[in-house]
Amino acid sequence: MTTPAPIVTLLTDFGLEGRYVPAMKGVILGIAPSAHIIDLSHQVPAQDILNAALLLEAVVPYYPAHTIHCVVIDPGVGSSRKAIGVQTEFGSFIAPDNGVLSLVLEHAAEMQAVVLENPAYHLPAASHTFHGRDIFSSAAAHLATGVSIGAFGPVFSDWVRIRRPAFTVADDTLRGEVLQVDHFGNVLTSIGPMRWVDEGAVEIALPDDTSLRFDARDVHVTFGWHRLSGLFHTYSEVETSHSLALISSSGELELAINQGNASKQFSIAPGDPVTMTITTT
Amino acid sequence: MTTPAPIVTLLTDFGLEGRYVPAMKGVILGIAPSAHIIDLSHQVPAQDILNAALLLEAVVPYYPAHTIHCVVIDPGVGSSRKAIGVQTEFGSFIAPDNGVLSLVLEHAAEMQAVVLENPAYHLPAASHTFHGRDIFSSAAAHLATGVSIGAFGPVFSDWVRIRRPAFTVADDTLRGEVLQVDHFGNVLTSIGPMRWVDEGAVEIALPDDTSLRFDARDVHVTFGWHRLSGLFHTYSEVETSHSLALISSSGELELAINQGNASKQFSIAPGDPVTMTITTT
Amino acid sequence: MTTPAPIVTLLTDFGLEGRYVPAMKGVILGIAPSAHIIDLSHQVPAQDILNAALLLEAVVPYYPAHTIHCVVIDPGVGSSRKAIGVQTEFGSFIAPDNGVLSLVLEHAAEMQAVVLENPAYHLPAASHTFHGRDIFSSAAAHLATGVSIGAFGPVFSDWVRIRRPAFTVADDTLRGEVLQVDHFGNVLTSIGPMRWVDEGAVEIALPDDTSLRFDARDVHVTFGWHRLSGLFHTYSEVETSHSLALISSSGELELAINQGNASKQFSIAPGDPVTMTITTT
Repeated sequence: MTTPAPIVTLLTDFGLEGRYVPAMKGVILGIAPSAHIIDLSHQVPAQDILNAALLLEAVVPYYPAHTIHCVVIDPGVGSSRKAIGVQTEFGSFIAPDNGVLSLVLEHAAEMQAVVLENPAYHLPAASHTFHGRDIFSSAAAHLATGVSIGAFGPVFSDWVRIRRPAFTVADDTLRGEVLQVDHFGNVLTSIGPMRWVDEGAVEIALPDDTSLRFDARDVHVTFGWHRLSGLFHTYSEVETSHSLALISSSGELELAINQGNASKQFSIAPGDPVTMTITTT
Repeated sequence: MTTPAPIVTLLTDFGLEGRYVPAMKGVILGIAPSAHIIDLSHQVPAQDILNAALLLEAVVPYYPAHTIHCVVIDPGVGSSRKAIGVQTEFGSFIAPDNGVLSLVLEHAAEMQAVVLENPAYHLPAASHTFHGRDIFSSAAAHLATGVSIGAFGPVFSDWVRIRRPAFTVADDTLRGEVLQVDHFGNVLTSIGPMRWVDEGAVEIALPDDTSLRFDARDVHVTFGWHRLSGLFHTYSEVETSHSLALISSSGELELAINQGNASKQFSIAPGDPVTMTITTT
Repeated sequence: MTTPAPIVTLLTDFGLEGRYVPAMKGVILGIAPSAHIIDLSHQVPAQDILNAALLLEAVVPYYPAHTIHCVVIDPGVGSSRKAIGVQTEFGSFIAPDNGVLSLVLEHAAEMQAVVLENPAYHLPAASHTFHGRDIFSSAAAHLATGVSIGAFGPVFSDWVRIRRPAFTVADDTLRGEVLQVDHFGNVLTSIGPMRWVDEGAVEIALPDDTSLRFDARDVHVTFGWHRLSGLFHTYSEVETSHSLALISSSGELELAINQGNASKQFSIAPGDPVTMTITTT
C-alpha cells in the first residue's frame, strides 16, 4: 500500500526575487525530501492579510485534505504574535496568528489548533525576522513527515479573527466595496455570493442568512461616475472593449471589460465603494 | 513495475498573483494527487494566443510524451468556443479551441482530438468565466489518472487554426516581423528557421520549402532607422553594449545588444517590420 | 528500498515569461522524468553573477545533500567560458564557470569539479546562445539519473572566483556597501555576519578572523544623509513607517522601515556605501 506524497503549499508576500522563497523550499525538502511543494502565490501584496485570507478561502476547497498549507504573510514577525498550526477536515495550515487563516477556518467542522511552541520543530537558532524559514516551513515539513499536530505545542482556540468584507442591504440597494483586482484588471467586490439559478435568474445570499432571487436584467451597478446595467454570464457576451458586470468564478459581483482592464479604465481600486441596485418592477 | 508520475504542465495568461493559478493546481491535485505539476509560464501577455502557440511549439518537443499540457489562454471563455483534448505521439493537450494548439499540432503524425463535452470530467456546477479551473484542469487531471482521451467527448478534427507568422522573399530581400521580446530585451523575429552549417555558412528554410545557403557576413538586417551587418553566433562576440544580429536558440533571426536591452534601445516591439538582405556577390 | 526522487533546482535570470524556463524544465523531465524540479528564482537581475552567488550561499545549506542545483546566469554563453559540474558534501552544482558558484564553494570540505565537455551529456546540436537548455539542464538531468560526475568531463580546479563584498574596519568604524534590496525594500549590506549573543549584545565576525562584541545600543549606522541608532531584533519593535537597523535573517546589517520600503524612501541601491560606527564608551 502506498500513500501519496505529502503536498505542502506556500502562500507568501515574499515575491519571487531573492532568497526568502528558495530558503523556505530548502527547509521543507531538507526535512521532508519527498514533499511535493506547490506555489500558491508569492505575490500577495506586502502585509495584506485580508488578500491572502480571501485567496485561501477561494482555493483551499480544491486541494486534497492531506495538503499542508504554509502561509507566511507576517508583518508581526518576531513580535509576540503566535505561530499556529491548525488541522481541519479539508486541510492543515501553518501560519502566523494574525487572522490570515480566520476566513477559511470558518468553514471547518472539525479542527485542532495548536501554538507552534515546541522548539524541536523549529530550526536551531531561529532568527527574529524570518519565521517563514525558521518556524513555519520547518513545522510544515515536520507535519508532512507524519508528526502529529498535537506534538507542536499546546492546544488553543482564541485565534485572531479578521472582519470579512461584506455588504449592507437597504431596500433595493446593496452597498459593498472593491476587494481585489485580478491580473486582467477585472474587479472583484464584496457583494455576494451569487449564483445563476437559471438562464436569467440570480440568487444572492444576504448578510441576514436569507436569500434573494432576481432577474439579471433588473440589476444596476454604480461605482464612481460609472453605471453598468444587467448581470452577464461571461466576458464575451459584450463587444471587445465594452464593460460589463457579471458573477465572478467565486460568486462575487465582478466588474470587467471584455479583453480590457476595468481597474485601470475606471480607476477603481480595493476599498472603493460599489453599489448594486435591484429594480424589481 | 512502476510508471513515472504523470506530468501536467500549465500555460496561462493568469499571472502569478491571485487565485486563478492556485485554484487550477488544487483541482489537479484533488483529482490526481500524485501529479507532478510544472509551470510553463503564467506570464503570457493577456489573451495573446499567438504568443502561447509559439511558446508551446518551442518547448513541447523537450517534454516526455506522457506529459499533459494544460493551456488556458481563453478570451472566449463561456462562449460557444469548444474545449478540446488532443493526444499526439509527443504529448497530450487540453485547451480552448482558439488556435493556441494549432502550431504545435502541425508537427503531429498521429493524433486523436475530442471535444471535452462529457460533464463527468468537469467540476460540478462549472462557472461561465473560469473554465481553466472547472473544465481544463479537471480534464487534464482525469487524463493524468489514466482516463482514455476518447472518454472525454466526441472526436472532431476541424480545430481553429491561426496564421503562422512568416516572411516573404523577393530577390535578395526577406521581409518579416518582430514576434516576441524576451526577458533580456532580445528581439525574436519571424524570419527563419536558420541553422549554422559550418563556422561561417548559414542555411535558411524558405516559405516555398526550398532552402538557401549563404555566408553570414553577407547579411544586412534593417528595422526602423537601424542596420546591423553580419550574423553572429553569440552575444559575447561583440563588445558589451554593442548590437548584433544572430540566430536564436529556436532558429529565428534575433536582434540583441550584448548585456543590453535591444527592444528598449531600438524601440521595437512585436509586429514591427524587419528586413534581412543577403548580398551574395 | 526506495531512494527519494532526485531534486533539481533552477536559478536563472531568465524571468518567468517566455520559453527559456519551460524549455529547461522539459529537457530535465525528458531525461529524468521523475525529477522533482524546484524553482529557486528566475528573477535574478540580468547578468548579475554576484546576486546569484549570494543567493546560493544563503539557501543551499537548507537543501538535502542529494540536491542538484542548476544555475544559469550566463552572460558569456557561447564564448570560451567553461561549463562546469561540481559535487560537494552539501549538494551538486551545474553552472557556467563565471564565479557564480565560487562563494558557496568556499564552504566545501570535499569537492569534485569537472568541465562539462562530454558531448554525450549535451543535447544534440547545442545552440550557441542557450546553454541553459542545451548543456546545463541536460547535464543536471543526467546527474539526476545517477550518472557519475566524473563521466561529464575532465577534472579541474581553477574555477573563476569573484570578490566577496566585504567591509573595512578603522578604529570604531566599519565601512561596507549595499548588497541587495529585497521584495519589501529592505536593504541588505556587506557588513556582517553578526549574531545576537544575548538580548542586548551582538557579535560580529571581522575580516581578520577575529570577532568583536558590542552593545546593540552603541551602534550608529549612516548612509547618505541618514542616520539610524541601535540595532533592533525585528521590524515591529519600532512604530509602523519608522526606520530601523537590524540583523538580517542571514546575519548582515539590514536597513528597513517597519511595513514600509526603505530602499525607495531612502533612495539607496546596491553599491551605495554604508557605515556602522560602534561607540563603546
